[in-house]
Amino acid sequence: MVAIIMGSGSDLPQLEGCAKLLDSLGIEWESRVLSAHRTPEALDSYIAGLEKKGCQVIIAAAGLSAHLPGVIAAKTLIPVVGIPLKAKTAAMEGMDAVMSMLQMPPGIPVATVGIDNGTNGALLAAAIIGSSDVKVRKALAGYRSEKKEKLLAQYHGEVLK
Amino acid sequence: MVAIIMGSGSDLPQLEGCAKLLDSLGIEWESRVLSAHRTPEALDSYIAGLEKKGCQVIIAAAGLSAHLPGVIAAKTLIPVVGIPLKAKTAAMEGMDAVMSMLQMPPGIPVATVGIDNGTNGALLAAAIIGSSDVKVRKALAGYRSEKKEKLLAQYHGEVLK
Amino acid sequence: MVAIIMGSGSDLPQLEGCAKLLDSLGIEWESRVLSAHRTPEALDSYIAGLEKKGCQVIIAAAGLSAHLPGVIAAKTLIPVVGIPLKAKTAAMEGMDAVMSMLQMPPGIPVATVGIDNGTNGALLAAAIIGSSDVKVRKALAGYRSEKKEKLLAQYHGEVLK
Amino acid sequence: MVAIIMGSGSDLPQLEGCAKLLDSLGIEWESRVLSAHRTPEALDSYIAGLEKKGCQVIIAAAGLSAHLPGVIAAKTLIPVVGIPLKAKTAAMEGMDAVMSMLQMPPGIPVATVGIDNGTNGALLAAAIIGSSDVKVRKALAGYRSEKKEKLLAQYHGEVLK
Amino acid sequence: MVAIIMGSGSDLPQLEGCAKLLDSLGIEWESRVLSAHRTPEALDSYIAGLEKKGCQVIIAAAGLSAHLPGVIAAKTLIPVVGIPLKAKTAAMEGMDAVMSMLQMPPGIPVATVGIDNGTNGALLAAAIIGSSDVKVRKALAGYRSEKKEKLLAQYHGEVLK
Amino acid sequence: MVAIIMGSGSDLPQLEGCAKLLDSLGIEWESRVLSAHRTPEALDSYIAGLEKKGCQVIIAAAGLSAHLPGVIAAKTLIPVVGIPLKAKTAAMEGMDAVMSMLQMPPGIPVATVGIDNGTNGALLAAAIIGSSDVKVRKALAGYRSEKKEKLLAQYHGEVLK
Amino acid sequence: MVAIIMGSGSDLPQLEGCAKLLDSLGIEWESRVLSAHRTPEALDSYIAGLEKKGCQVIIAAAGLSAHLPGVIAAKTLIPVVGIPLKAKTAAMEGMDAVMSMLQMPPGIPVATVGIDNGTNGALLAAAIIGSSDVKVRKALAGYRSEKKEKLLAQYHGEVLK
Amino acid sequence: MVAIIMGSGSDLPQLEGCAKLLDSLGIEWESRVLSAHRTPEALDSYIAGLEKKGCQVIIAAAGLSAHLPGVIAAKTLIPVVGIPLKAKTAAMEGMDAVMSMLQMPPGIPVATVGIDNGTNGALLAAAIIGSSDVKVRKALAGYRSEKKEKLLAQYHGEVLK
Repeated sequence: MVAIIMGSGSDLPQLEGCAKLLDSLGIEWESRVLSAHRTPEALDSYIAGLEKKGCQVIIAAAGLSAHLPGVIAAKTLIPVVGIPLKAKTAAMEGMDAVMSMLQMPPGIPVATVGIDNGTNGALLAAAIIGSSDVKVRKALAGYRSEKKEKLLAQYHGEVLK
Repeated sequence: MVAIIMGSGSDLPQLEGCAKLLDSLGIEWESRVLSAHRTPEALDSYIAGLEKKGCQVIIAAAGLSAHLPGVIAAKTLIPVVGIPLKAKTAAMEGMDAVMSMLQMPPGIPVATVGIDNGTNGALLAAAIIGSSDVKVRKALAGYRSEKKEKLLAQYHGEVLK
Repeated sequence: MVAIIMGSGSDLPQLEGCAKLLDSLGIEWESRVLSAHRTPEALDSYIAGLEKKGCQVIIAAAGLSAHLPGVIAAKTLIPVVGIPLKAKTAAMEGMDAVMSMLQMPPGIPVATVGIDNGTNGALLAAAIIGSSDVKVRKALAGYRSEKKEKLLAQYHGEVLK
Repeated sequence: MVAIIMGSGSDLPQLEGCAKLLDSLGIEWESRVLSAHRTPEALDSYIAGLEKKGCQVIIAAAGLSAHLPGVIAAKTLIPVVGIPLKAKTAAMEGMDAVMSMLQMPPGIPVATVGIDNGTNGALLAAAIIGSSDVKVRKALAGYRSEKKEKLLAQYHGEVLK
Repeated sequence: MVAIIMGSGSDLPQLEGCAKLLDSLGIEWESRVLSAHRTPEALDSYIAGLEKKGCQVIIAAAGLSAHLPGVIAAKTLIPVVGIPLKAKTAAMEGMDAVMSMLQMPPGIPVATVGIDNGTNGALLAAAIIGSSDVKVRKALAGYRSEKKEKLLAQYHGEVLK
Repeated sequence: MVAIIMGSGSDLPQLEGCAKLLDSLGIEWESRVLSAHRTPEALDSYIAGLEKKGCQVIIAAAGLSAHLPGVIAAKTLIPVVGIPLKAKTAAMEGMDAVMSMLQMPPGIPVATVGIDNGTNGALLAAAIIGSSDVKVRKALAGYRSEKKEKLLAQYHGEVLK
Repeated sequence: MVAIIMGSGSDLPQLEGCAKLLDSLGIEWESRVLSAHRTPEALDSYIAGLEKKGCQVIIAAAGLSAHLPGVIAAKTLIPVVGIPLKAKTAAMEGMDAVMSMLQMPPGIPVATVGIDNGTNGALLAAAIIGSSDVKVRKALAGYRSEKKEKLLAQYHGEVLK
Repeated sequence: MVAIIMGSGSDLPQLEGCAKLLDSLGIEWESRVLSAHRTPEALDSYIAGLEKKGCQVIIAAAGLSAHLPGVIAAKTLIPVVGIPLKAKTAAMEGMDAVMSMLQMPPGIPVATVGIDNGTNGALLAAAIIGSSDVKVRKALAGYRSEKKEKLLAQYHGEVLK
């Protein structure tokens, strides 16, 4: 099971595709809006319950100083995937969130994916689960070859004219 | 009273001047090495005790993803001054730490000063305390005019030849 | 009392929320458009009068090379909060203003908050005043827990479907 | 089992700590120098064999344009952890490698960690394996609490004087 | 003959001008949508056939981590021109793609041109072919002097009033 | 007299205010569209004639790699003011043009002003001419105090409510 | 006459070449260490006296937030040349100082030259004075052709072997 | 034949490897120190003679604002390879030179390679010549497979222990 946590309700639209992709790969998920700074206790208590629920991966998305995935990673051993979001008042087009997630100090890693890249967040979670779950790995293989076939079918031969 | 918190023991040398400056301004301080990610419970419990001790300002210094000041600010109403440090594996010469501190989401501010600028961290803490403490404000005024006199005395008239 | 100073009339809309937030926290404020470069004498004379008026914090907002908060901080001992603004002709999405405020030389600090983040400017001012004013600290605590309750109420349980 | 792949022999020193950490967590590993661009066939054939060997995570480290982890991720379903290295002729202190790893197109994720951060590469690999391997998760828990105790023991109470 | 390869169908509009310019210079071309990561085998087999077809230059355009031109260059001795594209979720306005193309490790060069600059991609391809093909060089000379005449004719004398 | 040179006809709108401001300061000017790269001979011959015409300052505006002011400065002793423009395909919001103008090698300076800042280009030209022309200096003084009065008149007292 | 003003005594070594170059061009100069923030009144009074002394150009050098040239330009009509310095705690290798000088708001320009480029600061000052002083222009022409001859003499023909 | 042009004598050491690599590929070359700004006429006249000499590629290396390759490309139809150099006073570790070369306006391309990457400059020149010269292409193929064999021989099997 995957837990999708976002720092603000305004991040919801950017994570819908992520959740749908998990669905299509047969991976259960649940989602919460919880802030590392504004609701730290609720976040802590939610994370504490995740291991018992059998959560295998946490996807955490945030913009600006984007501490959310790092703060979560410090409280659990479940692998944490970070999705940096380009906020409306972002600096350098989302590089603020990238640096806050990526440059975690030695000891507490965050598996960071690209800016606003909910698709890769879901696929990385699937790859992690798939490393021990043959069904998910098969679903992932299916997704990948389906995408490949689609791309090849859509664009075979000359594309400019 | 000012609490100086740093994320790692390797940050100690960069904060010695900060502590000495507080001394010279007649401001009491205490210091701790506590990490937002590696010792979150100890950090929480230390912060929880600060208000009772009469702590007026917290100075938090960190490098890399530098969540420390933001995580502290989320747990207390004491104003938090953040000093971004240029770590050995910093990205863009310390800009990673700057963005992690500065770009806090609306709701939990960090008063960020310049990269490796422990002096300004101490002076900002003094200005904050001085806003209600005449003695500290006087010490600050003394510091500032002393620096000014020194600069003017050292460099009066022609400096290149 | 808080003085809100902005470098240009075009910055007004970005500071309305800041002023309203101070109101809601029971903090008096006044505001001026004064430029470090275009009206330096008027700025100096306004700052000179602020201490007598009992001003406890100055909030200074500016874009581009954004000298305003630093120039103010050089003329007073009142703590100065700087809000970097993303101007229409900004470089690197407001990083020009960030660097001009943040990287003040040792001696004259500016308490810099995030880009266009008027909310955090107001909250930092409130935290500074609250460090010696129990009423403001209570208002700040109220604001923070109200925001937390709202967030938790609005987003309890599943948020994606 | 973890495979550590680096793009150049000059990256060896930066990955020694990574390998030792895997050892201390009881995780088997093997390592190769293979380049996405200079030895593409050897890389492909090595990757093709990894699933059969029971490889659970691939750690790929590279500097400059750093395609290595992305090229690997395109050829396998095993989760790939990318470590961006600050090369001698890096642009913007390693940001070239960060962007080449992080900004993978939707479809093929790389789990990127911080610049030169071999420690976090190893710990992320351990967290991924630990998501289905209780023994590794326990080792990880042990590592984390040991680090915490060490930090607290080394720096209890006053650290500046 | 020039082969134009792009990483995604969404890059088509940005390459139409590039193809038309090759046409007007009398240079034959063909185009494909092929991804370094999503269709690596199809890409390899297409590249393998290019030398036999007499392909003289490959133009490869991609955004984000933009491995496409580098991956192609590793598989052929035909010179590869890289056009970095500013993707919708780009970091730093296309600098992610620039760095991924430009900073190739010693051994496998990519001839990188400006962001979204399909015109210069075509002209560079023409210059390369023109270095051994007098007809193309003449066409290029014609293009350049035509542009010059147009510019001079359109803007002779005073342009502001 | 001031010569305004721009690298492309698309830069015209951004220089209209610059020309009008020169008019209002009583400074004669003429303007040309001439490219350092596409019309180098015409540019050389135009520059060669400027000294005889009594040209005192050259304002050169360009975007992207923006060699125009530097190439001009290499061919004349007339001071050259460079205005970096934020082109549609700019990297990092105009920083490409800034670096190309600013970082001229020792020997050939360009007096660079802010991004898209035609106003400051005109005012710097006026200051240069005014250093030996009392009438222009007076006009400049008039402009500056008029702007100051306007700002003070428009925004006297409270501006937020 | 040129006034060279620097923000700190530590900037002296970087301006020695600048002063010597002015000497060799037959331009008189004087120099001061004066800070926009630490000695604002002394700076104001020094600037106020410069016009009477016949000062034609002010060269102002500073690092970090580097307000010095902008603050000076706001107080005088004499053209101000800004030299951004790469300070020990600079962000992004001196880009902090560049942005603080370059991005001045419309109304008060600073003629910015390259990072640590005292040579170009002196040459730009000379070009400005030379625009109305034939002797200086001749000296400048002499300097330039001497440099050219030296370069051509030193490196005629093959330079690598 | 390849012409190697550098903007300054201080760039010589960084181009020695480039020249040796051309030698080892059996490609004739000659080299010059010529500046776009300090010796424009000598540069123009040298470029004018290159076509007659049968020059097939020009390699131009420069740091800082690095106009050299663009200025050359504007004067010839020979393809120009640009090598951006990280100068001692570079901004952002050589990104100033990258942008000045890469972001050439539509019409005049420069084939830019990585920072300080003389090896890739030589290899790109060889690939361009090889596109019509079977002997050079074979030498290039030899170089590439030799490098591959060396890498594989040097690092076969386990590399960390």
